Amino acid sequence: MTKSALQIARASYKPKMPEVLKGNIRIKEGTATESAGDQEEIKKLFPNIYGLPILDFVADEGQPGMKDPINVGVILSGGQAPGGHNVIAGIYDGIKRLHSESRLYGFILGPSGLINHEYKELTGDIIDEYRNTGGFDIIGSGRTKLETKEQFDKGLEILKKLDIRALVIIGGDDSNTNACVLAEYYQSINAGVQVIGCPKTIDGDLKNKQIETSFGFDTACKVYSELIGNIERDCNSSRKYWHFIKVMGRSASHIALECALQTHPNICIISEEIEAKKWSLDDIVEYIAGIIANRAEQGLNFGTIIIPEGLIEFIPAIKKLIEELNDFFAHSSDEFNLVRRSQQRDYIISKLSPENAKIYASLPEKVAKQLALDRDPHGNVQVSMIQTEELLSQMVGKKLDEWTNEGKYKGKFSAIHHFFGYEGRSAAPSNYDADYCYSLGYTASMLIAGGKTGYMASVRNTTAPADKWIAGGIPITMMMNMERRSGKMKPVIRKALVELEGAPFRYFKSQRGKWAIETDYVYPGPIQYFGPVEVCDQPTKTLQLEQKGIQMTFL
Amino acid sequence: MTKSALQIARASYKPKMPEVLKGNIRIKEGTATESAGDQEEIKKLFPNIYGLPILDFVADEGQPGMKDPINVGVILSGGQAPGGHNVIAGIYDGIKRLHSESRLYGFILGPSGLINHEYKELTGDIIDEYRNTGGFDIIGSGRTKLETKEQFDKGLEILKKLDIRALVIIGGDDSNTNACVLAEYYQSINAGVQVIGCPKTIDGDLKNKQIETSFGFDTACKVYSELIGNIERDCNSSRKYWHFIKVMGRSASHIALECALQTHPNICIISEEIEAKKWSLDDIVEYIAGIIANRAEQGLNFGTIIIPEGLIEFIPAIKKLIEELNDFFAHSSDEFNLVRRSQQRDYIISKLSPENAKIYASLPEKVAKQLALDRDPHGNVQVSMIQTEELLSQMVGKKLDEWTNEGKYKGKFSAIHHFFGYEGRSAAPSNYDADYCYSLGYTASMLIAGGKTGYMASVRNTTAPADKWIAGGIPITMMMNMERRSGKMKPVIRKALVELEGAPFRYFKSQRGKWAIETDYVYPGPIQYFGPVEVCDQPTKTLQLEQKGIQMTFL
Repeated sequence: MTKSALQIARASYKPKMPEVLKGNIRIKEGTATESAGDQEEIKKLFPNIYGLPILDFVADEGQPGMKDPINVGVILSGGQAPGGHNVIAGIYDGIKRLHSESRLYGFILGPSGLINHEYKELTGDIIDEYRNTGGFDIIGSGRTKLETKEQFDKGLEILKKLDIRALVIIGGDDSNTNACVLAEYYQSINAGVQVIGCPKTIDGDLKNKQIETSFGFDTACKVYSELIGNIERDCNSSRKYWHFIKVMGRSASHIALECALQTHPNICIISEEIEAKKWSLDDIVEYIAGIIANRAEQGLNFGTIIIPEGLIEFIPAIKKLIEELNDFFAHSSDEFNLVRRSQQRDYIISKLSPENAKIYASLPEKVAKQLALDRDPHGNVQVSMIQTEELLSQMVGKKLDEWTNEGKYKGKFSAIHHFFGYEGRSAAPSNYDADYCYSLGYTASMLIAGGKTGYMASVRNTTAPADKWIAGGIPITMMMNMERRSGKMKPVIRKALVELEGAPFRYFKSQRGKWAIETDYVYPGPIQYFGPVEVCDQPTKTLQLEQKGIQMTFL
Repeated sequence: MTKSALQIARASYKPKMPEVLKGNIRIKEGTATESAGDQEEIKKLFPNIYGLPILDFVADEGQPGMKDPINVGVILSGGQAPGGHNVIAGIYDGIKRLHSESRLYGFILGPSGLINHEYKELTGDIIDEYRNTGGFDIIGSGRTKLETKEQFDKGLEILKKLDIRALVIIGGDDSNTNACVLAEYYQSINAGVQVIGCPKTIDGDLKNKQIETSFGFDTACKVYSELIGNIERDCNSSRKYWHFIKVMGRSASHIALECALQTHPNICIISEEIEAKKWSLDDIVEYIAGIIANRAEQGLNFGTIIIPEGLIEFIPAIKKLIEELNDFFAHSSDEFNLVRRSQQRDYIISKLSPENAKIYASLPEKVAKQLALDRDPHGNVQVSMIQTEELLSQMVGKKLDEWTNEGKYKGKFSAIHHFFGYEGRSAAPSNYDADYCYSLGYTASMLIAGGKTGYMASVRNTTAPADKWIAGGIPITMMMNMERRSGKMKPVIRKALVELEGAPFRYFKSQRGKWAIETDYVYPGPIQYFGPVEVCDQPTKTLQLEQKGIQMTFL
């Protein structure tokens, strides 16, 4: 592995940790907890681990340690997020501190590694190669879902063989849901294997009162904001383009919102608001075109627009259209395939309900085609393939042409498109994520030492300096409720969408009028690792607003 | 202007300078020079400034100073490049050091500001707001060409009015060519206005023996390499995608090559090599597909490919096709517009020569359409609009399908596309560009003090520590030759393409076989401003290879 100069210099960074994790700890148990919703059902589904107390680590005398070594397994699940390697380093350092002969095993390419018995021991040499680096390449990741008894039993075989007594699953809401199901199952059969989850996802939608943020969100948003800032500066220099910038975040708009708070674009669309206001696609187009026309009146024929990846599914009318299309293709795809290509569009229009037909007819050709042709193996529209940034800019262009003809708009409109996702998922972690992840991993090892299962590692108060961070464990059942998934009611961790009453959105809302018309771009620049604290160690604006409120953050 | 924490911290950075610029200087003149080619013609076109000597600054006793203040004008020309603001800060500090009452005027939105008399005085307060920042927004930039006597005379009016005795033009090869023509003209009429050029372009194609590199190339390549490295790490973690990454660089592949040297992708296409080897589009597709198939045999169904923006124009067969298409549309566009859309493709094929018809027929529908429909106001194909990254991945996909049918390939191929350009043009300058640009600006002011005109500011030996850099001036005529442009022979600065015999390409060639098959990705990470010297102050690999050779650079 050829290393860059930065990678070499950064390898020796020692993540900052909560004071409490530096010495011996005692686990303080709170009172019994309840699930976020549907308490009766959740309790029935998780009889062995329901209602566990919140755990807080408290400093204790002596040195941390265990009489016997403990073997631990770790799994990376789902999409990459910056800091995953530091979680693993934290677990490793934690269990080694507890007993020098403890061992850490990594399962290869995600949950399938557990089922297929593909693993490798993660020794000190390997761990050192990956400290403070991005990516999940130390053991790879995967999207296999751990859901069935057969999988659990198959996994148990290898866990027993390797004498692994605890498994740490690093993943998003779904993976932590599955970790919880697994914890319950192993507990129910007295398997002697604890299961601990760690909150990962750049999307930032795994959070609640006890889990402040998922790791990776900080770094990914900072990488995207670096690029958006650079584009804004370019835009403000050449003064002739509108940049339509889509950012990752399929379900929630946290990334778009955080990037907006960091860079002050002229426009940022928040899916959750569109849904709440029941806006149509045309409403969005009109809103964007309106701001473009306003700026044009001041001679400003340029700007930046941030669009969340998942927007299209939050537009109620489009959601309905997609549902009808899915239904149509589920029943009539053989018929449809006989229709000549040039007539497919009209054919679809003839088959839809009048309301949806009208919307479908209004879509640009390319998007209409994508909705008709690009389907996943289950026949569903692949919404993530739809280039929302191009869709919007085309429709805005058309709207502005109409306004030009009506004499309502006299500007020039030229659009450039960007999509940022893969550019940030595997970036080397910021100080925040490096510290947070290492602490999460270390915390997981202490929960293991305490004999806990069905918990998520929790590190809180992270807008304070790291030594004041609070560490402990949150029972995963506490975050759950029942939701319909693929037609069945299932226990799941509630996904955290952008709250329209929360401080981050409220602050954005109070500023966006100004940002739209004035050019108040902010250029955050690249993530820094060696500079002053206020440059290197800032948490996200989202977290600062949530924890400190608006005044403290922006004073 | 709301400022980010990094911007605030970075504002106080004092660019490093050549030792010689810190005190008083004497200008040492070399012997008379010759133009790069067509000496007789160039001499005839530039009778007043042809053959000037190379100038070197030498340390002298005393303090730098002029008896009288001097007013200087500055113009930013063409696309943004990181460091432009520091050139201006260098000029400002230079002329203020020469005389505290000197003034600097910036012409607004490029050369048109000079012609239209749009300007603003750049005072110390303004300059301080822009030190070490990216973008050209201090005065904006533009693409108007300064070419005609009328423009020159119009410009002279405002220069005289503001008592400006020297004009600094910051731009690429074309803008510096125009600066030279302007210098000659003002000299010929004894206008009393000196003209000095500064080498700017992220593309890196304005360089020669005396101009080591154009500013902005370093920073832009580092931003793109940060992103490419992040994508590589993602790719190596999820192990299921081929990323096709197009990078800016219309005429030359310097950016693609530098990014490859920094990140070790599996494949990097260099346009100059394609042209030299007379490869067809199909040859390129076969080359890429071959490496993909090779990796697939080892179970590696992922990789990264860097593609230079201008590739398509360097493929001899496509170049010929485009020429014939341009010719066809110049004469037959009325006819063509009568043809039904669904038959346009066949119509074009019927009109082309057999050789070009075959190539046109082989192109994916989308690209064929772009070649037929998207034309600039002169009827030419807009090559920059063609999504080469998608074109290649589609054709590669088709080729792999064929190989699958023939049993020659058993892998999975899934492509993701990226284009990086605007993300890097206005980034805040790296230390290298911040230092280099400031020194260029300061050098320009010293050339002005020396009464020079028709020179480009030159700072050399930049792979050494900054205090050992050499500063002076290079007569612009020295870089010129005659070339055909829009049908006419014109004096122009020779564009520096990637040299296939140069050290950067030779090193790349020696390594690419290994990079293709092994996964030897390098993750450069984001530009750092505050860390160790080896992280913050490295020049480009290109420059290191050119100046120090392969062994020194990679030992």
